[in-house]
Amino acid sequence: MPHLPDHLLTGYRNFMSGRYLAESGRYRSLAREGQSPETMIVACCDSRAAPEAIFDAGPGELFVLRNVGNLVPPYAPDDQFHSTSAALEFAVQSLKVKNIVVMGHGRCGGIRAALDPTAAPLSPGDFIGKWMSLIAPAAETVSSSTFMTATERQTALERISIRYSIANLRTFPCVSILEGKGRLSLHGAWFDISTGELWVMNKDTGDFERPEMT
Amino acid sequence: MPHLPDHLLTGYRNFMSGRYLAESGRYRSLAREGQSPETMIVACCDSRAAPEAIFDAGPGELFVLRNVGNLVPPYAPDDQFHSTSAALEFAVQSLKVKNIVVMGHGRCGGIRAALDPTAAPLSPGDFIGKWMSLIAPAAETVSSSTFMTATERQTALERISIRYSIANLRTFPCVSILEGKGRLSLHGAWFDISTGELWVMNKDTGDFERPEMT
Amino acid sequence: MPHLPDHLLTGYRNFMSGRYLAESGRYRSLAREGQSPETMIVACCDSRAAPEAIFDAGPGELFVLRNVGNLVPPYAPDDQFHSTSAALEFAVQSLKVKNIVVMGHGRCGGIRAALDPTAAPLSPGDFIGKWMSLIAPAAETVSSSTFMTATERQTALERISIRYSIANLRTFPCVSILEGKGRLSLHGAWFDISTGELWVMNKDTGDFERPEMT
Amino acid sequence: MPHLPDHLLTGYRNFMSGRYLAESGRYRSLAREGQSPETMIVACCDSRAAPEAIFDAGPGELFVLRNVGNLVPPYAPDDQFHSTSAALEFAVQSLKVKNIVVMGHGRCGGIRAALDPTAAPLSPGDFIGKWMSLIAPAAETVSSSTFMTATERQTALERISIRYSIANLRTFPCVSILEGKGRLSLHGAWFDISTGELWVMNKDTGDFERPEMT
Repeated sequence: MPHLPDHLLTGYRNFMSGRYLAESGRYRSLAREGQSPETMIVACCDSRAAPEAIFDAGPGELFVLRNVGNLVPPYAPDDQFHSTSAALEFAVQSLKVKNIVVMGHGRCGGIRAALDPTAAPLSPGDFIGKWMSLIAPAAETVSSSTFMTATERQTALERISIRYSIANLRTFPCVSILEGKGRLSLHGAWFDISTGELWVMNKDTGDFERPEMT
Repeated sequence: MPHLPDHLLTGYRNFMSGRYLAESGRYRSLAREGQSPETMIVACCDSRAAPEAIFDAGPGELFVLRNVGNLVPPYAPDDQFHSTSAALEFAVQSLKVKNIVVMGHGRCGGIRAALDPTAAPLSPGDFIGKWMSLIAPAAETVSSSTFMTATERQTALERISIRYSIANLRTFPCVSILEGKGRLSLHGAWFDISTGELWVMNKDTGDFERPEMT
Repeated sequence: MPHLPDHLLTGYRNFMSGRYLAESGRYRSLAREGQSPETMIVACCDSRAAPEAIFDAGPGELFVLRNVGNLVPPYAPDDQFHSTSAALEFAVQSLKVKNIVVMGHGRCGGIRAALDPTAAPLSPGDFIGKWMSLIAPAAETVSSSTFMTATERQTALERISIRYSIANLRTFPCVSILEGKGRLSLHGAWFDISTGELWVMNKDTGDFERPEMT
Repeated sequence: MPHLPDHLLTGYRNFMSGRYLAESGRYRSLAREGQSPETMIVACCDSRAAPEAIFDAGPGELFVLRNVGNLVPPYAPDDQFHSTSAALEFAVQSLKVKNIVVMGHGRCGGIRAALDPTAAPLSPGDFIGKWMSLIAPAAETVSSSTFMTATERQTALERISIRYSIANLRTFPCVSILEGKGRLSLHGAWFDISTGELWVMNKDTGDFERPEMT
């Protein structure tokens, strides 16, 4: 018997009688002509920070990679399986997106794990520990800032990791070349789950500021 | 100056005056108490198949990993950075989700790439090629099924890859142990972008069938 | 000849024909009966962060100490001249204020000086350098957080120094005794000059959060 | 929970919907470009004598040091923490103010304490006693002027202390050098809380006189 959790079946029925009904033409046309999103979002898996919700995006608008901590590792053309690099390559080279936005968020569990490297691994594989070790140097300096509160350290590392991922994006030749030609632009954003505020990275300074909402 | 693409800023304004305004209590409570989603979705980056849309899910409901082709690699406790395994570990061990759903979809670009291994790599790194080679054995047999149409081969591999990822999920000790205890269940689903139909995997046979919509 | 800068004389004329005229009764009564402010504010000398403006306070409301960086040194009953401790003693013991608020602000020049201890002293006395060395240990850890932007380091130290001053307030026996009896409460606040936002310290965590403005 | 006394929260709301709303452009520009006040005021902490009120000053106009009794100690380049000297150094050397105004006021509690040195100290530290002992020689001669009334002695010492602080200002090399070059001028003023009158010091005679208000 085909089976899905009830909450998904209920939600799917709402989708069919709601959004799909209203936008079936768009779905059909997207199926026929293929996707051509302008923007790729690198976001976190966190259930509270879905990019489509935060940007009120409809079908076809956002190509979305989600991993724990919204990290982009540096360019490493080796024999390994690189899911993040594969998604990046597909978005930039095949779909030719114009924008890549790395979006972090407050209270991120992955970042919290990075700040507490002495915590026991969740499993013998310690996948989270290894994955978050991508930002270990930054996590160490932040962890040692004992005059900051736990929340301040967390927010600091969340924002540092966004800048780190953007810097890593530029280690990919296809990204740096297209950015240099003005055909691709990179952005950072940080979402505050509690207040709903979106803080946007200032490209000149790296600071996160709230956009004017007029 | 902080800067985001216009379509994102417009969408964000809609979010703040719409969904956030209506659900600010829920966002605040999710921020305060942390997330506790029941379900993890492994989905594709494709802009036309956002799980939150298809399952009409609100904040806090779905922990969502998205990579190209919604793949789960087999358990490999080595020194590499495994973004997919890290997300899986976090969802199962830390968040203690009750369900994992691997959701594929029609017209998947990653699957199409896997079916055409002679295509020129998108970049010298060939990240997509390596990533999709996770399902290479299946892709080869499907490619050689010359009696199937191109669309049938594509759909076939999309569904095979879902079963393959579910099988890989079971190579993770934490998954197989919890599934054995009845505390975690694994599901497969396939979304038809054009018609909006959701096909759900029959656990006994592996077939994809349409759920009853009463 | 008595002489004041023109802008002060002009401003004073506005005061006499405006605020004083409207509140002369209050001024007369405050002169006759003495001051009895409920709240002492420890603020910075900065021309952009006057407490009476930010709290829209009239005559008699706020007992205001202002020094560079809104610092309170630790209790030190020695033979030196302690202007900050004298003001504190006067407010708590003589005026019996009920609240003390340490209010910092963004873009503080004193904090900036503390973050750059290698800068040449402004004068042979190096009074700013010595004064800001009160928070030297915190400044050093923040200065070494090289993954943070200059603005992030500045904001971090501005908030750390507020918590530091509040901790020092509690080293004064009169403060800690009265706080223990529930007759005095200590608060922290941080003013963003650009946006006008006031961030208020959470007493439990030390974090700065925006108060609800309903 | 972030918490401030109610009267401050109410006042802050008035600020945001009043002064900040009307002058947000000025606040933003002051944040962006930094402060450049022309005038430093040395004033008392007294809640009835806020310089911004008396001089009807907007954001960015006055760099304000406030301590008990508006005192400036003499230049003492030693190892101590000198909050007043630090503020002076910052105003003169870094902000390059053109004017310094020492503003005293009637019914000053600090001056009253200086006139009654036999009073019991407010605390074991006796910070007020030590701080006001900066003007002890003058206080002693005034106390012994038994032909003056108590009010006359108080007003006399309030004005003497302003002249004393101005004399101490000139012991700072940076002040005396810049004053000699005509790039910095020193002023004295005395505010009568009851009548709102401002008395301005005559630089030639040291007398306090009422400025012409035409």
